[in-house]
Amino acid sequence: MKLTIIKVGGKIVEDSDSLEKLLTDFASMEGYKILVHGGGRSATKIAGQLGIESQMVNGRRITDAEMLKVVTMVYGGLVNKTIVAGLQAKKINAIGLTGADMNVIRSEKRPVVTTDYGFVGDVKEVDGANLAHLLRAGLVPVMAPLTHDGKGSMLNTNADTIAAETAKALSPYFDVTLIYCFEKKGVLLNADDEESVIPIITPALFERYVADGVIQDGMIPKLENAFSAIQKGVSKVVIKRASDLANASGTVISESE
Amino acid sequence: MKLTIIKVGGKIVEDSDSLEKLLTDFASMEGYKILVHGGGRSATKIAGQLGIESQMVNGRRITDAEMLKVVTMVYGGLVNKTIVAGLQAKKINAIGLTGADMNVIRSEKRPVVTTDYGFVGDVKEVDGANLAHLLRAGLVPVMAPLTHDGKGSMLNTNADTIAAETAKALSPYFDVTLIYCFEKKGVLLNADDEESVIPIITPALFERYVADGVIQDGMIPKLENAFSAIQKGVSKVVIKRASDLANASGTVISESE
Repeated sequence: MKLTIIKVGGKIVEDSDSLEKLLTDFASMEGYKILVHGGGRSATKIAGQLGIESQMVNGRRITDAEMLKVVTMVYGGLVNKTIVAGLQAKKINAIGLTGADMNVIRSEKRPVVTTDYGFVGDVKEVDGANLAHLLRAGLVPVMAPLTHDGKGSMLNTNADTIAAETAKALSPYFDVTLIYCFEKKGVLLNADDEESVIPIITPALFERYVADGVIQDGMIPKLENAFSAIQKGVSKVVIKRASDLANASGTVISESE
Repeated sequence: MKLTIIKVGGKIVEDSDSLEKLLTDFASMEGYKILVHGGGRSATKIAGQLGIESQMVNGRRITDAEMLKVVTMVYGGLVNKTIVAGLQAKKINAIGLTGADMNVIRSEKRPVVTTDYGFVGDVKEVDGANLAHLLRAGLVPVMAPLTHDGKGSMLNTNADTIAAETAKALSPYFDVTLIYCFEKKGVLLNADDEESVIPIITPALFERYVADGVIQDGMIPKLENAFSAIQKGVSKVVIKRASDLANASGTVISESE
């Protein structure tokens, strides 16, 4: 049975037209499906209004106790429930989940090496059996980028990682395709040319592109997540634009050509 | 099979000691259980920090579009997930739900008669069968005071009403006790005497107490909710202090003495 896991950025909910298109495309997708959302900008904006400064190190938010409250509100409340209510309006029986709900994703607070990221969680285990059960019951999980430590604290967790770990945990039960949506049409050969989408990236090509500086910055961990998913049983990973969800397009990450 | 539904105010999460006590008492309760929480003060505080004014009419919040975002964040995110993570730490397999999740509570936007309450929902239907299924699967629902209209909008919904409607919807499946927690030991005969708890209130006593002015203001709709629940199959309604959850105390609402 096919399962498609779509990861979208949290900012998708900030523009009602793009949200509407995403939810329409997602609703019309066949087979089992899961939507994983981020939340970045909206949390930064609301934190700012509340007088809390957003500190980022290597693209990761430093999550102090006050910022943890903000991301729990924004990701777990505003973004998640806006999507769930929107899907329900399209007769998709969505259920919003953080990792704490049904203990579905246990994580541990990232250990301090050089940087103290604060209340940030590294995923330990995704309960694939439980998610498979929900999917088979006709439910569509909508997953927020939040997990918990099992000791009473929520933890801010990277949405790309949640999508990849969820895909891996479900690969024993389904034929899983993982789709990362972002603002470009795919991974670009030339950052200035929107049409230069690389159709396929194998591990050998990835190494070469990184060495050549074609792939850099935030795209590197995204692709590392993708390859890690493929190696753990996920059938296919695709990187594409959210607005192209209904079209065959984007960059396919594959073990071989 | 016994099911206990506990309704607590949202401010319980603001004090970590009282939250810890509540979660410990709740976790140790036997049988099937559901926790319904409000959220009032924390939303008012955060709305204020965001420059959004809280307007109340007859104890009900006027929920404009901006306030709806705040209550969705605070009730659905911060309050709900703080409780869920806290229960998970006590090995209670909690699942946070708004009415939109699994379409568990459908409501409709309150019609404008004299006051436009904005995005406030009147409960239409609670999916008792689905909740019963979750309970039997070993899950403990933690319900936020939010529902949805089925057309894509979340709606702010009174937590007492959610508790009562959920209790009614589950009465065909379980022997339901509904417990409303608030700051007093029970319904008091004399507001100035904490020890003057009325042990039992029947419909006849209720009428008399209202006529005499013993029961007034916000307690009237709370008791009306309670009697409505009893009439629709709920076995028992108790009004008591959250800190007395583990003790036999409070006011019992009953059809007869």
